[in-house]
Amino acid sequence: MGNIKIQAFIPLFYLVWSDDLLSKKELATLQDFINAHDWLSSEEKQWLLSKTAISNPPARHEITDWKNKIEATIQENTAIKSIFEISLALSGNDTVIRDLEISFVKLENDLGILGEEAINNFKTKTNPQTATHQTDDNFDVQKLTALLDGEQAPIIKKVKSVISRPEFKLENITDVNAYREKVFEWCKILADENLGNMAYPKEYGGGANMADYFAIMETLSYHDLSLVIKFGVQFGLWGMSVQSLGTEKHYTKYLKDIGTLKIPGCFAMTETHHGSNVKGLETTATYNHQSQTFIIHTPHEKAQKEYIGNAALHGQMATVFAKLIIDGHDYGVNAFIVPLRSEDGVVLEGVTIGDCGHKMGLNGVDNGTIRFNNVSIPKENMLDRFASVNDNGEFESPIPSDNRRFFTMLGTLVGGRIGIPRSALAAAKTGLTIAIRYGDQRRQFGPEGDSEVPILNYRMHQRRLLIPLAKTYAVHFALQHLTQRFLNRTEIEMQEIEALAAGLKSYSTWSTTAILQECREACGGKGYLSENRIDALKNDTEIYTTFEGDNTVLMQLVAKSRLSEFRKSFGEMGSLGIINYVYENAKSVISEKNPITIRNTDEAHLLDGDFHLQAFQHREKTILASAAKRIKKLVDNGMDPYDAFNVVQHQMIDVASAYLDRVVLEQFQLALSTVEDESCKAILNQLCQLYALSQIEKNKAWYLEDNYMEAVKTKAIRKMVNQLCWDIRPDAVALVTAFEIPDSCLGALV
Amino acid sequence: MGNIKIQAFIPLFYLVWSDDLLSKKELATLQDFINAHDWLSSEEKQWLLSKTAISNPPARHEITDWKNKIEATIQENTAIKSIFEISLALSGNDTVIRDLEISFVKLENDLGILGEEAINNFKTKTNPQTATHQTDDNFDVQKLTALLDGEQAPIIKKVKSVISRPEFKLENITDVNAYREKVFEWCKILADENLGNMAYPKEYGGGANMADYFAIMETLSYHDLSLVIKFGVQFGLWGMSVQSLGTEKHYTKYLKDIGTLKIPGCFAMTETHHGSNVKGLETTATYNHQSQTFIIHTPHEKAQKEYIGNAALHGQMATVFAKLIIDGHDYGVNAFIVPLRSEDGVVLEGVTIGDCGHKMGLNGVDNGTIRFNNVSIPKENMLDRFASVNDNGEFESPIPSDNRRFFTMLGTLVGGRIGIPRSALAAAKTGLTIAIRYGDQRRQFGPEGDSEVPILNYRMHQRRLLIPLAKTYAVHFALQHLTQRFLNRTEIEMQEIEALAAGLKSYSTWSTTAILQECREACGGKGYLSENRIDALKNDTEIYTTFEGDNTVLMQLVAKSRLSEFRKSFGEMGSLGIINYVYENAKSVISEKNPITIRNTDEAHLLDGDFHLQAFQHREKTILASAAKRIKKLVDNGMDPYDAFNVVQHQMIDVASAYLDRVVLEQFQLALSTVEDESCKAILNQLCQLYALSQIEKNKAWYLEDNYMEAVKTKAIRKMVNQLCWDIRPDAVALVTAFEIPDSCLGALV
Repeated sequence: MGNIKIQAFIPLFYLVWSDDLLSKKELATLQDFINAHDWLSSEEKQWLLSKTAISNPPARHEITDWKNKIEATIQENTAIKSIFEISLALSGNDTVIRDLEISFVKLENDLGILGEEAINNFKTKTNPQTATHQTDDNFDVQKLTALLDGEQAPIIKKVKSVISRPEFKLENITDVNAYREKVFEWCKILADENLGNMAYPKEYGGGANMADYFAIMETLSYHDLSLVIKFGVQFGLWGMSVQSLGTEKHYTKYLKDIGTLKIPGCFAMTETHHGSNVKGLETTATYNHQSQTFIIHTPHEKAQKEYIGNAALHGQMATVFAKLIIDGHDYGVNAFIVPLRSEDGVVLEGVTIGDCGHKMGLNGVDNGTIRFNNVSIPKENMLDRFASVNDNGEFESPIPSDNRRFFTMLGTLVGGRIGIPRSALAAAKTGLTIAIRYGDQRRQFGPEGDSEVPILNYRMHQRRLLIPLAKTYAVHFALQHLTQRFLNRTEIEMQEIEALAAGLKSYSTWSTTAILQECREACGGKGYLSENRIDALKNDTEIYTTFEGDNTVLMQLVAKSRLSEFRKSFGEMGSLGIINYVYENAKSVISEKNPITIRNTDEAHLLDGDFHLQAFQHREKTILASAAKRIKKLVDNGMDPYDAFNVVQHQMIDVASAYLDRVVLEQFQLALSTVEDESCKAILNQLCQLYALSQIEKNKAWYLEDNYMEAVKTKAIRKMVNQLCWDIRPDAVALVTAFEIPDSCLGALV
Repeated sequence: MGNIKIQAFIPLFYLVWSDDLLSKKELATLQDFINAHDWLSSEEKQWLLSKTAISNPPARHEITDWKNKIEATIQENTAIKSIFEISLALSGNDTVIRDLEISFVKLENDLGILGEEAINNFKTKTNPQTATHQTDDNFDVQKLTALLDGEQAPIIKKVKSVISRPEFKLENITDVNAYREKVFEWCKILADENLGNMAYPKEYGGGANMADYFAIMETLSYHDLSLVIKFGVQFGLWGMSVQSLGTEKHYTKYLKDIGTLKIPGCFAMTETHHGSNVKGLETTATYNHQSQTFIIHTPHEKAQKEYIGNAALHGQMATVFAKLIIDGHDYGVNAFIVPLRSEDGVVLEGVTIGDCGHKMGLNGVDNGTIRFNNVSIPKENMLDRFASVNDNGEFESPIPSDNRRFFTMLGTLVGGRIGIPRSALAAAKTGLTIAIRYGDQRRQFGPEGDSEVPILNYRMHQRRLLIPLAKTYAVHFALQHLTQRFLNRTEIEMQEIEALAAGLKSYSTWSTTAILQECREACGGKGYLSENRIDALKNDTEIYTTFEGDNTVLMQLVAKSRLSEFRKSFGEMGSLGIINYVYENAKSVISEKNPITIRNTDEAHLLDGDFHLQAFQHREKTILASAAKRIKKLVDNGMDPYDAFNVVQHQMIDVASAYLDRVVLEQFQLALSTVEDESCKAILNQLCQLYALSQIEKNKAWYLEDNYMEAVKTKAIRKMVNQLCWDIRPDAVALVTAFEIPDSCLGALV
């Protein structure tokens, strides 16, 4: 067809046939259009119509030919802005065509062609930024590692070197017995390296270094988590219950052998019917003054000890928590050392051991049940630091309240609530290392006709992994802070430290559960293969949110502790006082709530650490006061306090979360303020901003309800979170490299 | 001490010594108080001070004695409202004491005693409602089951009966080989029961009943999920790829033997380097006209087929997706039947099989990798419904665009995106049945001195399980709707149905992942034991969010499809038109946004289904228009469209979510409107309200940002969600009983 005019149809033909969604209706529309134009000869019409026949689609080379013509036209006429202008140019600027602009544009619309987008697709691409964004080298990784490790760097290095040895090679052992034995062997090696007894006093062979012990727990957690838990049961729960609840005679007799793993042991607190509510434990220890013994007894099946680590196979002794009964009087829960097995592993008379069997994870740990049928133990087996039976067979204790004594005993064991969140933190670091490196390597999709793009360049992928990365750094510094407070504790601070530990235990373990979920999904099918480690990390840490205290229960305790702090400050006020306080408190933030601040979307303001901390603090104190007010109102209206606390359970979780968020941000900012290296400081600052803003974004409904921010500001914060993810992305790989996790712990993927 | 006045100190002594948090400072405060009162004789002072000595705490019987006196006083004087009034009464209304009110009250405050709460604790309790709330019988469970099962009730019953047989007893098989064989055996039994070929045409031995096939997949999912996936791979993916992509000659040759499991087969699409972006598959099928064959070849290691179910052990053939090459021209991805193993299981020449090894879950499925080294297959093995090579060796297809042809082929396989979310739904139902029954039985904590309370009575526990329960019912009806639309589909609806299936696949599988997480935590340690099933449910469904299309990628597709619907409606408008539309749309909701509505917290309004649906619809259309506007703005400002779509990825997820939320609510309400039994209707209505309001609560930040609701309303909604949970709780057990899941599938816990 020589008539140059009909070249005007080429863009339409091309766009119609190259459209994946081409429908018969569209072809009919095109045919109607052709038939309606009388300036076309019947021969031309016939030829044009032949290009619209579904039974005879254009050959591939013809489509390519059309595309080439269009692209050439656009390159020659850079001013072209619409499809019609291409048609016009192809027709040699024919006047008939020129007059048909309206009807051509209408046709484009009828065909659902979006001109601007189509033109863009034709233009030779400048590389889209999504395709070119990549890993870069902006800070000194080793300096960041040194900063994270701090004074524990030598022990961390030692542990990493031990777990990198060939005998610690990670395998996916599905046979539970083989797995348990492997983990026990690993524990022995660690004991031989004097890692297990690190926290025990030097006179009993220990290292007298609790700080190092925590670092060991955390660093071991890059390796198999069954090993960490078995290690923690033996040297932490079993050994430290003797150390914390016992006295000199117990130390002398047991501590050294516990530290060398000569006496494997258990921590037997939880019972089938009492997990969270341990005050209600039903096992009894009945004193017999005549024989100078206690009779340990399980009164019914549901009072058996359950989930006890080291019980099913290896434990020779246990610290058993039981109600002390003297002359028929119940003196509350106390702790006793009870032998379970002989040295050669035979279960002793009166003791019945069950096996918890296969679990979702941690199958290298031999969890079991223990029942006692009137097992007699000598009087000196009572761990008697906080309570004892005197020579007259009378109960004695420096702490009068049974409750308080029990919680004091539990308080000495708070170390477990530091070890577990730190172990969870390490698991999150491992998961993020795997997923971020994979996201940097894995390519999928890309600009039309261009090579595929690393999936970490996609914004959703960045949100999924980099917000968790920022949170993981934040939790790191918060747990360092908790550890320091614990190590330097005074008696008066203990309640506060216990609440903080309970809270950060929940915060860190829930965070890890959520992060590993994202990591699994972010690695797709690869994340599902056991060889890539996320399987084990996820399933092993799954129980972290339950053991050492169920997170939801702990959060209620944290909130109650916050409320009692609140009461301490405002106890004198009475109800009017509290309401006044709320009012005063509201006034005090009026400056923050002025109409300019609540709408301020300046970048400098949004990125300002003071703004972040004020926002966190405001949320913390407002939520606390509001919960206090609500409980008071419910009780004043005649509700039973027990019911009132139930009604506000959901708010109580918010009270605890807001408190923990504030502590975590505060500690991140404090840590940041001490960093000297500028490159490290810069990237940590971005992470801190991302942590702060992503938490505000998460809680933006609260800020809007409170009118602390208006919609324009919360929307700007969302954009800023996305921008920070984008800006941090080039450093993401280096940020996980700074964790310096041994390659042997990172699975097959990276 | 005979002086009755000093009895006034009893309440203080009791409260101080019974306080778990008693501190030395408090005792000192009390001592100062005693010393300051000159009306006391030195003897009296000495006696009183002896009751404040930490070295000599009061005996337990003395504390009990104090408590009894206080309680007796309160019972005799019901008007007592403060601690001081107790003191006064105990002192025999002594005038000296009466005059000391201010100083006593100050002391109370100094000691941190909260009078009202303390008084409440002394009063004989009316049973707190938290303790008395319990399972009740408010509706006809069997009628609800009938309503859920609908017309598929007979086949559902049959499947339940099959999986309840002794040979289907669930075991936790950790040995992968044994597990795979067990699952294969189970599949054979199901095939013998004519369950596998249910959807195939009758002439090939099938049941010609796709609706029943979906019900089979869902019901089997109460049992082992490896079985479901193995079953789905064989009869769904493998069999239906032949049925959907092949023609008569293939049906005759293969369908019957596939249906009887005589030919185990695979669906070989995914490659190591191409999972989500299947358009980029690299396996080739090169046509050789002379020999009338295709040569199937894997060009490099990363182009191997990966994660292929049935490949590692049992598959004899596979539907292989490969780029068709004729005379050096690439005709896009097409499907071919390629033999893998001989009938006796020997891998054929040119085929290399790898084993994906141990996975996080689904270890009863033999996933493997497949590589082809120039494997020759006859020409007739091309599945040629949508494309073929003609007798001249030329490519032929009724669908001109390679892309469109490929997506049409994928479209015929959309059934998988219905089977998977329905399987996920069943897993959520199982998890909820276990966790809710456990929550009803498990007791922990309780009012002081009273028996412990079922944990399902705690508000947080209700939120954790009952909001998911409502969502599960909602998803049930949405998936019924999707299934019906698919079964009654017309060509013109296919794109919409595909988008709906992709969306609901994401919606249901993400929901299940989240729900099973809550179920695990809600069952505590018990949830961690494999015998209680949550382990397997959680780990097996973990990959559901990835396979049959990665959820995040699918959600982007759903959003794009919504945008193109939007374009279809508003394509003619151009950019100004879209902005006008947004404006008009904004105007149209002005009535909903009037100052009264946005603050309306009337119970009747909050529970009104019309309000819910309008809120969902408003969110859906506003988010869609806003995303369209934003993309347009970015592109107009010169951003590459590929980048623009990346920038809005996060918003795109919201677009898809809002659309799916609306569909799910709409279908729940529609289903509800057809229920005749009043008792069922009432409880379903509450579930529907809970679903709607909990979703609004989840998205309340958006509603606040949009000013569709004010804070007073979102706060009222939160309370209403809690109230609905409380109200539904007595029916919770019956609501899971209505799923009628065989006991043998519910594990050891319940």
